[in-house]
Amino acid sequence: MTARAGLTGRSIIAGWDGAGSGESVRAVDPASGQELNPEFEFVTEAAVDAAAVAAGAAFDVYRETSPAERAGFLERIAAELDDRREAIVDRACLESGLPRARIEGEHGRTTGQIRLFAREVRLGSHQGVRIDEAQPDRAPLPAPDVRQRHIGVGPVAVFGPSNFPLAFSATGGDVASALAAGCPVIVKAHNAHPGTAELAGSAVAAAVEACGLPGGVYSLLFGAGRVVGQALAAHPAIKAVAFTGSQAGGTALMATAAARPEPVPVYAEMSSINPQVVLAGAAAGDLEAFAAAYVGSLTLGAGQFCTNPGLLFVPAPAGGLVEAIAAAVAEQTGQVMLTAGIRESYHEGLARLEAAGADRGATGSDGESANAPAPVLFTATAAQVLESPDLQEEVFGSAGLVASYESMDELRAVLEALPGQLTASIHMTESDHAAAAGLVPVLERKAGRLIANGWPTGVEVNHAMVHGGPFPATSDPRSTSVGTLAIRRFQRPVCYQNFPPDLLPDAVRDANPLSLARRLNGEPQL
Amino acid sequence: MTARAGLTGRSIIAGWDGAGSGESVRAVDPASGQELNPEFEFVTEAAVDAAAVAAGAAFDVYRETSPAERAGFLERIAAELDDRREAIVDRACLESGLPRARIEGEHGRTTGQIRLFAREVRLGSHQGVRIDEAQPDRAPLPAPDVRQRHIGVGPVAVFGPSNFPLAFSATGGDVASALAAGCPVIVKAHNAHPGTAELAGSAVAAAVEACGLPGGVYSLLFGAGRVVGQALAAHPAIKAVAFTGSQAGGTALMATAAARPEPVPVYAEMSSINPQVVLAGAAAGDLEAFAAAYVGSLTLGAGQFCTNPGLLFVPAPAGGLVEAIAAAVAEQTGQVMLTAGIRESYHEGLARLEAAGADRGATGSDGESANAPAPVLFTATAAQVLESPDLQEEVFGSAGLVASYESMDELRAVLEALPGQLTASIHMTESDHAAAAGLVPVLERKAGRLIANGWPTGVEVNHAMVHGGPFPATSDPRSTSVGTLAIRRFQRPVCYQNFPPDLLPDAVRDANPLSLARRLNGEPQL
Repeated sequence: MTARAGLTGRSIIAGWDGAGSGESVRAVDPASGQELNPEFEFVTEAAVDAAAVAAGAAFDVYRETSPAERAGFLERIAAELDDRREAIVDRACLESGLPRARIEGEHGRTTGQIRLFAREVRLGSHQGVRIDEAQPDRAPLPAPDVRQRHIGVGPVAVFGPSNFPLAFSATGGDVASALAAGCPVIVKAHNAHPGTAELAGSAVAAAVEACGLPGGVYSLLFGAGRVVGQALAAHPAIKAVAFTGSQAGGTALMATAAARPEPVPVYAEMSSINPQVVLAGAAAGDLEAFAAAYVGSLTLGAGQFCTNPGLLFVPAPAGGLVEAIAAAVAEQTGQVMLTAGIRESYHEGLARLEAAGADRGATGSDGESANAPAPVLFTATAAQVLESPDLQEEVFGSAGLVASYESMDELRAVLEALPGQLTASIHMTESDHAAAAGLVPVLERKAGRLIANGWPTGVEVNHAMVHGGPFPATSDPRSTSVGTLAIRRFQRPVCYQNFPPDLLPDAVRDANPLSLARRLNGEPQL
Repeated sequence: MTARAGLTGRSIIAGWDGAGSGESVRAVDPASGQELNPEFEFVTEAAVDAAAVAAGAAFDVYRETSPAERAGFLERIAAELDDRREAIVDRACLESGLPRARIEGEHGRTTGQIRLFAREVRLGSHQGVRIDEAQPDRAPLPAPDVRQRHIGVGPVAVFGPSNFPLAFSATGGDVASALAAGCPVIVKAHNAHPGTAELAGSAVAAAVEACGLPGGVYSLLFGAGRVVGQALAAHPAIKAVAFTGSQAGGTALMATAAARPEPVPVYAEMSSINPQVVLAGAAAGDLEAFAAAYVGSLTLGAGQFCTNPGLLFVPAPAGGLVEAIAAAVAEQTGQVMLTAGIRESYHEGLARLEAAGADRGATGSDGESANAPAPVLFTATAAQVLESPDLQEEVFGSAGLVASYESMDELRAVLEALPGQLTASIHMTESDHAAAAGLVPVLERKAGRLIANGWPTGVEVNHAMVHGGPFPATSDPRSTSVGTLAIRRFQRPVCYQNFPPDLLPDAVRDANPLSLARRLNGEPQL
């Protein structure tokens, strides 16, 4: 392709401009409600097929790139994104309504995680090499030589969310981890930030070209989720799906993937209310500081984080803690939400909490934009939460529910009743540790990340992070969508039995030319 | 429970005898068609619930057993199985019709793989520990302390097949790997070998008691698959399903697991025809020796292996190879099949191949038993196989299809068209390596295990083995059901952020009291 100087409104189909179907979408500035240029042309199903076939054709070449080549490609993507930083940040601010500092931070996180995956690819331990040498003299039968490595599963379809226009989008964590695993990627761009997606996607396309890789390694499609998205997830060349967004969207993709002639795995990150437990000692501390920290996390980014602390358990009586939190919420002003649709859902969520019997404990002020509704605090008892699934369900936005518990038994019972979560926090002092120890096993079963004395917003991108959890937090609790372990989602093991040395892939050769950590006859070796 | 001296016909519900529903089944000696004693009483759905609830209640205790405790428990199971060896082998021979040497070998494999998993648990690398230390001074924000380990997913339901009454059954590979992962197990016994299942299951129950573990760690249920099996897979306490058997059975469980309020992973190992490719050099070798080896693998265990080499590609003209194979098949006598139903399916499979246009190239002799049908060889062209899905589908039993290919391009095209496989073999000489190199990428995408100059029957239980592959070979190509990597199927990652040291599990403590291999700030450490 010829390099794109700016926004064209055209999909990237394996390096070529995608032809439109006649339909299109414009981004909207959520603060003003104004439509933005250009129009983004929706692709046809034929274009989906072209992208998927090209991805399939690119797979064998791309998955056999050496660690140095693949890491170099990832680093080139990061460099291309840095080159486009100003344009990307400008457009992302405009399309998302998020503050510039947040978007600048997200840009840094995006390039940072791509570079982290590049280092991981160079290290190569994700290839999971195991060699069991032949035992020709073993009785009663000789043992064969068996060598295992992990390869990519094949082309991956990625669906990003509205709330991370960079870090989970066209060049986000799912894309980076799939590319690191050796899988071509096709991104269905989110229609709330198509311009951001095109600018970021162009960076990948430029890196593909600069590194001499097949164009099919990366495509970016504009289209309606129900048409283009479903056609993509159903395409036989697609071997895995990664999604971040609503439970309705995620379960629709799970159904599509399960109904294919060849079912494929879906990694959907969906819905989480992230329970926060305040134990007695913590409830007797500096209440105003605690309330300020909680409300800061609750309203961060207009509450539009999958890790938003939607449900806070406090001991009854809480000795002024609820009042302190209510006072802090009342002082908050609404921030611009990502889309008008999300704002409408937020209001529906507030109504749902009220209908389910929660009391409105405090309401902040609406922001200046029509799209910046006030944060709201609700209160209820833990017994009410235990009884009502509506009080256990996420409200996307700055809506907090504070639930008071009468005893540790009651607290444990309501935690047991909650569905799967991304995170759970315990707020405690030394004197609470024995009580906390009794909750940890419950929370381990419920969530992917357990936090002590901290708030769940802000997900560190490192090696140990788990951003995942049981359904409906995600569709697959055996994985994480943040951190280097995310590579594993897009790999499968293959073994080679009694292969002639010249036919073995480098990763499993005796001489270990790639210097990979491996297990030799069961013994771990660095 | 009181130790069971012999067969009782009762399910094991968390250590207690299960009450029957009124229905029952008897095993049948497949050689004679004679029913065997005792009757095995089917359990009610209430008993399924009792077993599942007990498994859920046992989970937190069992998953926190130390590596030494859990390994000791696995070794105790192996010892209890060895104590019951004579009775188990006698009964398994009677129920399966398989030769005593085969069953004795399977007993050794069963205890051997349990002991292998015990060593793996002691080593502990499957816990996948990663520690990223806090960086309090990092700008712009400090980094938290994050520590990751893998825990069991929760109680696992296991459905074994008819063809491995020991190694994949009540104490088989799925049970051993789930227990190694820290998951309680509920086995739905196969109705073709209920007595073998009870004897083996009693060994686990005895080990549970001897090790002072909660009874819910292991249950064994007798019942109809469509009632007890489905109720088990649908139970909310069950967090993963492992199945080995037919594609119909596996896909039914996949549908049940996907339709649950909380969908759970299913590891179903189902259907594979295990393509064998003979390249030109190999086709010009010792034809009789080759034919004998192929037919040996094809007819092993009456052809009732998931790794049976059902489809052999030979170059056209094959210079006498097909004739040599036909002669070897014609000399074979049928062996007793596992059940009358399997024998009927075998005949249906033969008819399907003929209806799809394959020629009957040779037929062996029927065995003495009414349940020992003759092995059959079919021939076709690779072009026919490419056109006909019926020729690409497994026939369970000693039915081989030899397909001749005209060119490497045609061979590659037909291999590309095949569905997912457990294994694929390339038979070659030095002069074939260049041609083989062109096939390896295709076969890597199609199968979990690639074999050079060998037959797929006989699966080594070690660290590097992959017994898995894309659908319909299995429901999940990201895993293996044989070898130590199988543990990973039943684990999920959990991380701990800024946890006080006294609340951390031993696996992730600074002092590393369990001496686990781990990654510290990304650096692998032994």
